[in-house]
Amino acid sequence: MENIVVTGIRGLPLIRAGDNIPAMICERVKVENGDILSLASTVYSKAKGFTKSLADITPSKRALHLAELNKEDPRFVQAVIDASKDIIMEYPFILSELPFGHIGVRAGVDQSNIDDGMVIFLPPDPMHAAAQLREEIRQLTGKKIGVIITDTCGRSFRRGQTGHAIGWSGFTAIRDFRGDVDLFGHELKITEEAVVDEIAGFANFVMGESNNGVPAVLFRNCQPWTGHDDLYFSKTEDITRKLLKEHCPS
Amino acid sequence: MENIVVTGIRGLPLIRAGDNIPAMICERVKVENGDILSLASTVYSKAKGFTKSLADITPSKRALHLAELNKEDPRFVQAVIDASKDIIMEYPFILSELPFGHIGVRAGVDQSNIDDGMVIFLPPDPMHAAAQLREEIRQLTGKKIGVIITDTCGRSFRRGQTGHAIGWSGFTAIRDFRGDVDLFGHELKITEEAVVDEIAGFANFVMGESNNGVPAVLFRNCQPWTGHDDLYFSKTEDITRKLLKEHCPS
Repeated sequence: MENIVVTGIRGLPLIRAGDNIPAMICERVKVENGDILSLASTVYSKAKGFTKSLADITPSKRALHLAELNKEDPRFVQAVIDASKDIIMEYPFILSELPFGHIGVRAGVDQSNIDDGMVIFLPPDPMHAAAQLREEIRQLTGKKIGVIITDTCGRSFRRGQTGHAIGWSGFTAIRDFRGDVDLFGHELKITEEAVVDEIAGFANFVMGESNNGVPAVLFRNCQPWTGHDDLYFSKTEDITRKLLKEHCPS
Repeated sequence: MENIVVTGIRGLPLIRAGDNIPAMICERVKVENGDILSLASTVYSKAKGFTKSLADITPSKRALHLAELNKEDPRFVQAVIDASKDIIMEYPFILSELPFGHIGVRAGVDQSNIDDGMVIFLPPDPMHAAAQLREEIRQLTGKKIGVIITDTCGRSFRRGQTGHAIGWSGFTAIRDFRGDVDLFGHELKITEEAVVDEIAGFANFVMGESNNGVPAVLFRNCQPWTGHDDLYFSKTEDITRKLLKEHCPS
């Protein structure tokens, strides 16, 4: 088996609305069949114009209330509300479910790495975003790759953010071991591995945060896997979500 | 900047108590200064004898109760209780805090990839385990590497396990961006990245689960970082832990 090679794609300029990200990436790196490209959602959203000026936002009564509670700009809070399908926790920070299933702090709305007074939203349909990027790269290069769109999220129990997948194309989110046996022939108890999050996390490590300017990472020689795409728990399965929703102050 | 190269260390035999893992690894791969070695905790625990025969375990009244609740072997549940500092949730699965701070399902006690009737515990002091492995490899090769010991854990909100770090040596768990600015000169809001978990996750992807037999992964050319080691939330910070502890059925 060959080593996996992970390349941070350097030299990309600051991304602006209308930029052709697949073309910019393919100018800087030669993709091969089976490669996996991981792209920061912020960069995708900037290129597609999923941004808004705070000056264009009028906060609702609820936004004013939550802004007061969390000591945040009411217009920013309104952007968070607008991006949310459901607010699971209002305080000490807003935790939202997005329409596509992801649960994230402040609905993933971001104020860093963008001009003053602007906010960046997560792509509203990141599965479509990943599929489209994949197809555009296929058209540019003739190569079939996989794509992961990442967001940076906190976790329960452990401090620090890590990269998570919010959109993917070319493979399944979960590697499914159901029916497999271990080295001793026992049927496995742990049967589902969230491989897209494991790849997204390492991509985030390579990207760094802050001013490193590496929003895209290419993985070569990853072994393919099979599984399914049910990455998000349903409401009834999700113990944490249920408890937060029922018991958190509002 | 050079590409990162990730090598799954193949050809390791089934690990038995007393095996010299650092020597076995260094026979199969040439380490260099700055490399990061990620090792599955199960393999470390087997070599060090952190295992027990179910036949040697007498379940307590509490173990019998929790076993009935969760439809598990009472002796296995006793092993979970013995490994736990605190049981945070009793049902629908046992969620424990371990003495070293990690929170994991069934206290990380494992029955896969070991002989019938045996259980594997997480290393009781995985920070020491990582430091010792690092030192042993330095003595064998003269090279200074970093080490991460991994466990496979579930998450809130998302289905599927991912690799997490439970022990590390040679760097900090968290990359700390406090005081850094973004590409536009704003001070960053997200300031702490749990890089050891991002690396552990990708190592777990390369290891695979089940019968792949790749318990160790080597990373070359990772950029160094600075930060701190406060990976685990304190009880007062941890909203999820507090809610589970207060509201879950027992």
